Amino acid sequence: MISSPVAWPGLKNLIRQIGTFDGAHAYAGSWANQLETVTQAMVVIALVLAVAKLGGELAVRLRQPPVLGELLAGVLLGNLGLFGITAVEPLKHSEPLAVLAEIGAVLLLFEVGVESDLFQLLAVGWSSLLVATLGVVAPMGLGYWASAWMMPDASWMTHLFVGGTLTATSVGITARVLKDLGKSTTREARIVLGAAVADDVMGLVVMAVVSGLAAAAGTGHGTPDGEGAGLIVAKAVGFLAFALLAGRFWSQRAFGWAARMQVPGALIASCICFCFAMATLASLAGLAPIVGAFCAGVVLDEVHYKPFVDRGERKVEELLQPITALVVPVFFVLMGLRVDLRGFAEPKVLALAGLVTLVAVIGKQVCGLGVLEKDVDRLVVGIGMIPRGEVGLIFASLGTTVLVGGLPVVSGQVFSALVMMVLLTTLVTPPMLKAAFARRAT
Amino acid sequence: MISSPVAWPGLKNLIRQIGTFDGAHAYAGSWANQLETVTQAMVVIALVLAVAKLGGELAVRLRQPPVLGELLAGVLLGNLGLFGITAVEPLKHSEPLAVLAEIGAVLLLFEVGVESDLFQLLAVGWSSLLVATLGVVAPMGLGYWASAWMMPDASWMTHLFVGGTLTATSVGITARVLKDLGKSTTREARIVLGAAVADDVMGLVVMAVVSGLAAAAGTGHGTPDGEGAGLIVAKAVGFLAFALLAGRFWSQRAFGWAARMQVPGALIASCICFCFAMATLASLAGLAPIVGAFCAGVVLDEVHYKPFVDRGERKVEELLQPITALVVPVFFVLMGLRVDLRGFAEPKVLALAGLVTLVAVIGKQVCGLGVLEKDVDRLVVGIGMIPRGEVGLIFASLGTTVLVGGLPVVSGQVFSALVMMVLLTTLVTPPMLKAAFARRAT
Repeated sequence: MISSPVAWPGLKNLIRQIGTFDGAHAYAGSWANQLETVTQAMVVIALVLAVAKLGGELAVRLRQPPVLGELLAGVLLGNLGLFGITAVEPLKHSEPLAVLAEIGAVLLLFEVGVESDLFQLLAVGWSSLLVATLGVVAPMGLGYWASAWMMPDASWMTHLFVGGTLTATSVGITARVLKDLGKSTTREARIVLGAAVADDVMGLVVMAVVSGLAAAAGTGHGTPDGEGAGLIVAKAVGFLAFALLAGRFWSQRAFGWAARMQVPGALIASCICFCFAMATLASLAGLAPIVGAFCAGVVLDEVHYKPFVDRGERKVEELLQPITALVVPVFFVLMGLRVDLRGFAEPKVLALAGLVTLVAVIGKQVCGLGVLEKDVDRLVVGIGMIPRGEVGLIFASLGTTVLVGGLPVVSGQVFSALVMMVLLTTLVTPPMLKAAFARRAT
Repeated sequence: MISSPVAWPGLKNLIRQIGTFDGAHAYAGSWANQLETVTQAMVVIALVLAVAKLGGELAVRLRQPPVLGELLAGVLLGNLGLFGITAVEPLKHSEPLAVLAEIGAVLLLFEVGVESDLFQLLAVGWSSLLVATLGVVAPMGLGYWASAWMMPDASWMTHLFVGGTLTATSVGITARVLKDLGKSTTREARIVLGAAVADDVMGLVVMAVVSGLAAAAGTGHGTPDGEGAGLIVAKAVGFLAFALLAGRFWSQRAFGWAARMQVPGALIASCICFCFAMATLASLAGLAPIVGAFCAGVVLDEVHYKPFVDRGERKVEELLQPITALVVPVFFVLMGLRVDLRGFAEPKVLALAGLVTLVAVIGKQVCGLGVLEKDVDRLVVGIGMIPRGEVGLIFASLGTTVLVGGLPVVSGQVFSALVMMVLLTTLVTPPMLKAAFARRAT
């Protein structure tokens, strides 16, 4: 087909038009129009997916988490402009792609929520809880300070977002390194993994609060003052408490009802509806939709949909897998796409990336102080908490959409610096962990 | 949350704005804008999904195929305007929803293709082949005639689409009824099921040809003349032959290569990329994307991705299930949404629906003549071929997007009549099959 005289110009045209893929065609009911939009959507999705998986594969081969490869693949694709290739440039601002990526983030946090459990969370030891708390407070404070020091003219919202991005640990990479080293059952490992669970929920509180502040600022009420901020914090915490309690009840009722359904796909459809409903509630409450999605995942307990599993349906985690395998990488590739490498030509941006990364590493070393047991290696605990990942990226990207005085709170340059921090903290952890264990062994 | 003074106006606003969900917001980088679009997208998807599954559930309870319920749920939702509720009206013309539905149709035909097999297809008996051929030719001819008789002023393209809609049998319902009656192993059953497989491919040829003609008409070249039509038919058949041969080779190579990937989700991502690539090729060749998607499914053989399965990954069918369970119902609900019940107030539309349904039933009775064996009940074979489903709907919806002289080839009224035909043929089959078997038993 490729060699047919009709197909070639069509293909060239299509490639030229991928850029204009913005869903802005009016529904004209015309075959040519609609066909074009659908074909463009398929080409864009296939392209992003292929790039994501190739990047992920490269990362896996280098014993790194796939996320890292997806991000880097996005960075590469997004900076092809440096080599004179501008065809993918418009993808950075494509709204359908942004919406798909955001839905990817929502489903990702739902999945993370499904895999964690409220009761398991309440059962982590005191050491883990203390480690997590220190690991949220210290990076937040240090990040705020670093941002304020480097950008004295920026809004305090900017500093808040930079600090917020540094809070959540992405423990996946640590868990894997510990397993590879055969150290999964050490007390250090148990403390780190427990802290990571607690960390998730604290990150959620931070996100609820910061996104509430952001929404207030973004809807034209201006930067909230002290009193307004207090109200927003109260509302965010109130939403979380309400969502976790009422959500648990709703989940039980909704799935108890859904479990009587016999139509194929009822379970996965119920999950998506529940997740989207909670995300919408969060959004109506002035918080980020992902906060609601995470709550939906946390309150959804296997017991609620047990009748489905008893009938031979697969578990929610397994049903979600093929879906998240398709939409979540879209989020990471888009995050990478939006990193402008040219920004690093400016020494100040490079310095910001360096300082933020340094602060991210140091901030989590404070975690070691939270260990109550005496014979535990505090350095290992501190290093294990270093990697930042998904939640940090979501935070940073949230910041780019909040406008204060017409400018985004997180500028393109700050965003690039924060993505760099995510990449570096993740890259640096495995060798440091190995070194820390080796030190102790001698 | 619902009772909070902030949430209520927000919710009302959101419901009022669902209508405007058209993805046409420019990417403004503003928190409020993007948040709104994402939230609207989630609300619309959750709504359509809930409506689809409730309808599907009702159908299953009444021992009907879920598709029927999804369609009827869409019809109900789309005609709420009769009761003064106009909130969902704009969904009918929402482009993002149309694109999602079309991607649903593409994935549906990919799935159908995956489940059928080229070699199995070549191995159906002569009776099945003859039954299928007659079952394509007779309804096509009768449908063309009925359309021309009822609408003498319409373009011959209209008649072609009406005929085309009547060709493809949707054998799922027959298979289920036969199973329920304990007749799955009779020779009648084997002939019908074999014919249904052959039917798929013949339907594909018809669709390739008709969509090629439609594309030619739709891109402004006007209704093709005899010579042009001949060229298009040759091109369509050529594409199919090429896609099935080259596609098989590509599939083998691509999956052989993909099978070396270790990153999670590599198999399902490869499938989607392959499906979308073939659909894009079909589209570039001037055919409907679904034609390419079906080819992709047919040529994709389990052998190609065997290394994945050997590593403990699930089969492609199982991986596709949760995805199609979410996007395919969007297609059926949207098809239902677009049926305007007010159209049936006009006697001519009602008459058209009746005549088309009658012709659809009679056309497949000709199938009985194709049975070569002597002791086979020809009535059972004919009745078993009656139900029309997915492929017919795709045909009809294709027709609504082709413009000839500025008017759609399949008008809203004709579309409504065709959907009615799909509903009726599916409803009528189970009792008729039961009666035919009962008649023979006495």
